[in-house]
Amino acid sequence: MNTQNAEERLTRIGVIGATGYVGQELVRLICMHPYLRLIVVCSVSFTGQKYSEVVPAARGICDLVLEEVDMDRMAAECDVVITALPHGVSATMVPGLLEKGLKVLDHSGDFRFRDPALYEAAYKMPAPEQIYLDMAVYGLPELYRAELATTRLISNPGCYPTCTILGFLPLLRAGYLQLDSLIADIYSGVSGAGRKADLATSYCETESNLKPYGVLGHRHRIEMISRLEEIGAPGIKLSFTPHLAPVKRAMLASLYARPTGLFPESLEDTEALTEFYADCFADDPFVRVLPAGQLPQTKDVQYSNFIDIAAVYEPASNWLRIFTAQDNLGKGAASQAIQALNCMLGYDERTGIWLSGIHV
Amino acid sequence: MNTQNAEERLTRIGVIGATGYVGQELVRLICMHPYLRLIVVCSVSFTGQKYSEVVPAARGICDLVLEEVDMDRMAAECDVVITALPHGVSATMVPGLLEKGLKVLDHSGDFRFRDPALYEAAYKMPAPEQIYLDMAVYGLPELYRAELATTRLISNPGCYPTCTILGFLPLLRAGYLQLDSLIADIYSGVSGAGRKADLATSYCETESNLKPYGVLGHRHRIEMISRLEEIGAPGIKLSFTPHLAPVKRAMLASLYARPTGLFPESLEDTEALTEFYADCFADDPFVRVLPAGQLPQTKDVQYSNFIDIAAVYEPASNWLRIFTAQDNLGKGAASQAIQALNCMLGYDERTGIWLSGIHV
Amino acid sequence: MNTQNAEERLTRIGVIGATGYVGQELVRLICMHPYLRLIVVCSVSFTGQKYSEVVPAARGICDLVLEEVDMDRMAAECDVVITALPHGVSATMVPGLLEKGLKVLDHSGDFRFRDPALYEAAYKMPAPEQIYLDMAVYGLPELYRAELATTRLISNPGCYPTCTILGFLPLLRAGYLQLDSLIADIYSGVSGAGRKADLATSYCETESNLKPYGVLGHRHRIEMISRLEEIGAPGIKLSFTPHLAPVKRAMLASLYARPTGLFPESLEDTEALTEFYADCFADDPFVRVLPAGQLPQTKDVQYSNFIDIAAVYEPASNWLRIFTAQDNLGKGAASQAIQALNCMLGYDERTGIWLSGIHV
Amino acid sequence: MNTQNAEERLTRIGVIGATGYVGQELVRLICMHPYLRLIVVCSVSFTGQKYSEVVPAARGICDLVLEEVDMDRMAAECDVVITALPHGVSATMVPGLLEKGLKVLDHSGDFRFRDPALYEAAYKMPAPEQIYLDMAVYGLPELYRAELATTRLISNPGCYPTCTILGFLPLLRAGYLQLDSLIADIYSGVSGAGRKADLATSYCETESNLKPYGVLGHRHRIEMISRLEEIGAPGIKLSFTPHLAPVKRAMLASLYARPTGLFPESLEDTEALTEFYADCFADDPFVRVLPAGQLPQTKDVQYSNFIDIAAVYEPASNWLRIFTAQDNLGKGAASQAIQALNCMLGYDERTGIWLSGIHV
Repeated sequence: MNTQNAEERLTRIGVIGATGYVGQELVRLICMHPYLRLIVVCSVSFTGQKYSEVVPAARGICDLVLEEVDMDRMAAECDVVITALPHGVSATMVPGLLEKGLKVLDHSGDFRFRDPALYEAAYKMPAPEQIYLDMAVYGLPELYRAELATTRLISNPGCYPTCTILGFLPLLRAGYLQLDSLIADIYSGVSGAGRKADLATSYCETESNLKPYGVLGHRHRIEMISRLEEIGAPGIKLSFTPHLAPVKRAMLASLYARPTGLFPESLEDTEALTEFYADCFADDPFVRVLPAGQLPQTKDVQYSNFIDIAAVYEPASNWLRIFTAQDNLGKGAASQAIQALNCMLGYDERTGIWLSGIHV
Repeated sequence: MNTQNAEERLTRIGVIGATGYVGQELVRLICMHPYLRLIVVCSVSFTGQKYSEVVPAARGICDLVLEEVDMDRMAAECDVVITALPHGVSATMVPGLLEKGLKVLDHSGDFRFRDPALYEAAYKMPAPEQIYLDMAVYGLPELYRAELATTRLISNPGCYPTCTILGFLPLLRAGYLQLDSLIADIYSGVSGAGRKADLATSYCETESNLKPYGVLGHRHRIEMISRLEEIGAPGIKLSFTPHLAPVKRAMLASLYARPTGLFPESLEDTEALTEFYADCFADDPFVRVLPAGQLPQTKDVQYSNFIDIAAVYEPASNWLRIFTAQDNLGKGAASQAIQALNCMLGYDERTGIWLSGIHV
Repeated sequence: MNTQNAEERLTRIGVIGATGYVGQELVRLICMHPYLRLIVVCSVSFTGQKYSEVVPAARGICDLVLEEVDMDRMAAECDVVITALPHGVSATMVPGLLEKGLKVLDHSGDFRFRDPALYEAAYKMPAPEQIYLDMAVYGLPELYRAELATTRLISNPGCYPTCTILGFLPLLRAGYLQLDSLIADIYSGVSGAGRKADLATSYCETESNLKPYGVLGHRHRIEMISRLEEIGAPGIKLSFTPHLAPVKRAMLASLYARPTGLFPESLEDTEALTEFYADCFADDPFVRVLPAGQLPQTKDVQYSNFIDIAAVYEPASNWLRIFTAQDNLGKGAASQAIQALNCMLGYDERTGIWLSGIHV
Repeated sequence: MNTQNAEERLTRIGVIGATGYVGQELVRLICMHPYLRLIVVCSVSFTGQKYSEVVPAARGICDLVLEEVDMDRMAAECDVVITALPHGVSATMVPGLLEKGLKVLDHSGDFRFRDPALYEAAYKMPAPEQIYLDMAVYGLPELYRAELATTRLISNPGCYPTCTILGFLPLLRAGYLQLDSLIADIYSGVSGAGRKADLATSYCETESNLKPYGVLGHRHRIEMISRLEEIGAPGIKLSFTPHLAPVKRAMLASLYARPTGLFPESLEDTEALTEFYADCFADDPFVRVLPAGQLPQTKDVQYSNFIDIAAVYEPASNWLRIFTAQDNLGKGAASQAIQALNCMLGYDERTGIWLSGIHV
């Protein structure tokens, strides 16, 4: 990458909600990024403490003092603010940041829907004003790269939607999937539940345990369908089951769909289907379509922004199966945010996150 | 339970393959059983060592010396022999044991099929003689309790088939499932791979990792279908994906099927569907149909013979989903073997295994 | 074991604090015990719910309804009450139970000290009345078996003291250890912290993490010293460092001490030292002195009442090192309680807990 | 850091033994380093395959083909070769690389001793020629920074010695420790055992298990003593117990020593002792002396080059205790190698490894 004029290209960043798990990962990645400078970190719970007192792993790397949110100071000292806040809270804060002239990347669900009715169905509260829903670009560069380059508001996708949408994308766009036949059976790491004292995510209740949850009402289901319908067509019916696995950071999706009559017989062959997927993602550096015969595993993507994908047609049952693996805090959250930010800021999409997963 | 005449009711047991993980669990359970006496333990790899030298956890509990297989001695000193051997090996040994007059419970795949062609399709080797396939009773008491009471040869089911068959059983038997729509998406603990030096199951390659495997050719798929067709009707099409999770012992199955026109609208309600399941398993003490709204999790069944089940209909997608949790070495292998043995020997089915899971 | 007259020998048990981790393990073990009958389970937090709703692993095994403490009912229906309560709380409840004529086993620190000043130094609150301190027998059968047979109040030892005291016992009693040279470096599983919502013991903060804690003030240090001085002589100086390891249930102690001039040169040999230890514990069925050359590991004792021990003299450094492994909820808490109860009730010490560890 | 003239400052690297765990971590770090270029990767076991086929996490990041060692090609195309090989193997290869004019960093024990007799005592094989022992600089920048700047052969320290030496360093150098009183009680992650098929490090044998090993003969003990005697004085007696913990990457050392009469009473205070440590390491960016009252934990250093340290004097027992935490593949191996390489190559010591630990 061209390092000339780096000084001119620096972007000053503020993070609100810096001590949650997504926030921590953002801070770690921003500190590694050559063009981003972390200027302000905010936290409601730890105002006045050094960030590295709350997150001792960062001692020496980020010793900024955690502050209350001061929009004027942010407007004066930052170019971009990243909000890692609960839904509902983001909605109250993001408009003000935008009005101050800041660019914003938001991690909550508040700006992920074009249609406020869908938001209200998913989150059981009133949606933000339509103007912000219209302004927000869904931070999935593989789908919205061009729009990201010109927006001032990025709404980062949920972790479950990311690995589901990217998995179905090639076949769905081509019209090869029966719209009412989709299944997403996904296991997530525990960090997805956030940083909090909660018996359900305590070590002794979680270690060695596998369980499904939220089988009828997970909010991400509506988010998935709304974006899948943009790729395919209205009428998507999707069964989505999230599960919890005893892993800190990982997400493995097993996706199922029935082929339509359009699905070419030639793609029943795994080699051909793999090539079809590889072609579709040829310009997406972080999507790794695995060689035919290999299957994704989460250790290959942990602590990285990669999503690994394999697709297989099973003739005996007539199901298309797609497997995707990502880090739920990586491509599922914080590093995907940096990727989208790179798009918005005009940097090479890979800048600062072109890192191998940590295999061991 | 009636403890009278316990001395008269003792059964003498030999275990071949006692030092593998299934073998170890069998030894542990036999030592806890009031009517079983462990007389002989055999191991090819550790002949001449004390069992408790190989499995130090058992020091003081089982200090028998591991022996080579001596069928005459077994015939003289045992009533029942349990074989925990690889497929193909069991086939060479079980007929001889039967001919000596012993009763046998076998853990391999060798005697799980009535039709030798299915065995050969699954295991790519010639099937045992038909006489033994005819004699063998599939060791799933919930399906074959009466047959188990009179057989001399039990073929213990695979772990994946157990949690799949029991999950689909009530709806399939009632004709409520489209036979070509079945999906079994299952995560297993690592102990299912057996006790061996293997990079793929080493700690650093397995910890924190989630992965699918064998997506097109797992042998248990054929086993599942053959038994599901006995319950339902010929024509089952099943997509089966096994996955590996970073857990020693656990198995969670997420099962999907489309309802037929026969499926009553009344059962779309979770309470009603739960009651339907509970009725079906009313006489099966180890199948716990959870109250409506609760979902199975593996920690509730670890180290026990229970299988926990919940069934849910998802109206938005028109899928029936059934979740089952078991211990892959428990109800999926060794404790299920004791349950089947209890049936064969005329003991109360619960004897020696009526134990809570180990929650913490 | 003799099963005659079992009906006459039944003991009726109440458990107060049944839903904590120690309480859960007690319930599990009582349900497996041939002569104990669980009559009442009490819980402040879950009064009115079934035990198995709170601990679904026990569904079908223990479906008693959790109650508030009613001492009169307990006196009428129980023979023994086990209290698994925080320190301070036990002190307010145990005297009343004793006055009603009940026998009591208490898990807190409240009755572990003969000298109230030590209690007050350790727990920073006033000690219970001296009469109860005098009455209480420390529930370590290896030291106080005879006293346990005649007491009405057992005070169960802490987990750290158990594995420390038993490790030093043979050498200390013989006068072979310099009293001011003792070190106990111990790693514990997370369940020792109890069942609660706490960020510090949440999965993501605990997994993969090793850490020391309480390095200057752990309460168990005073408890250890008071019992070690009974074995040896006044003047013990002990450095004790507890650590937390990413394990649910386990405790490994590495103990160090300097030999005195009395320490015989012959015992510098590992074989001889091993024999010395084995002789000392010859009548203690749950202490397994490992063969010379083997070292304890926690997986061999998990879910059991065994404690595995090895002692080694290191000539190059002149340190005696003793390694002990136990389950912190087993020999370190609940199964040790059953062992002590067996002593008090006149059962064979092994009854109901003569179980192998769960190796896999 | 100054990025001017970066092109001129590039160093070309070859790695021999690239697919072991240390090798993999080296490849990962080299790919992140702004001035290092990975040119050649060698592997005996996987010659001819792409690196990323063996380590799929690196797909897209390092797709070099693994080669047999060709010294002439290495001499022509590389500036530095890093050898991550077993001891004994390094000894046969490193001299040849040096003779070709290459600089070498070796990870084995072969060049860690100045005195061949110590090597032979530790490794039970003849030492390399004295000329290479003389040439080698022990790759611990905190001790040998100046020597590293001018050497052509770096011998990277063992993981256990690193965290032991740095922990004792300040007190030992000042003459405050009784030389015959040292104890190092250390728990390591499983990756320290290397990448191989081995039952002892398989998932089911390792998960949830804590165990000591090699209690009388670990090779690192001799290495520790030889360097501690350089810091202090001859006559060190050290008791060293390595343990295995169920963690992939981590190392926690609990160090004990008796103070001499020189130890100032003022340093009995934790604040003062902390300041004394902080002063000692003021110029060592990767040694983080924690604020008084905080204790190291491995999650704060995982995947980083930091070592966190706290020292405490315990008046009641008269022991000095020092706790150190590092990543056994980080500061204990691969990132420490990069740090030493930075010293040798004249880069800022922090270049490419100034990274936060990965807390979650």
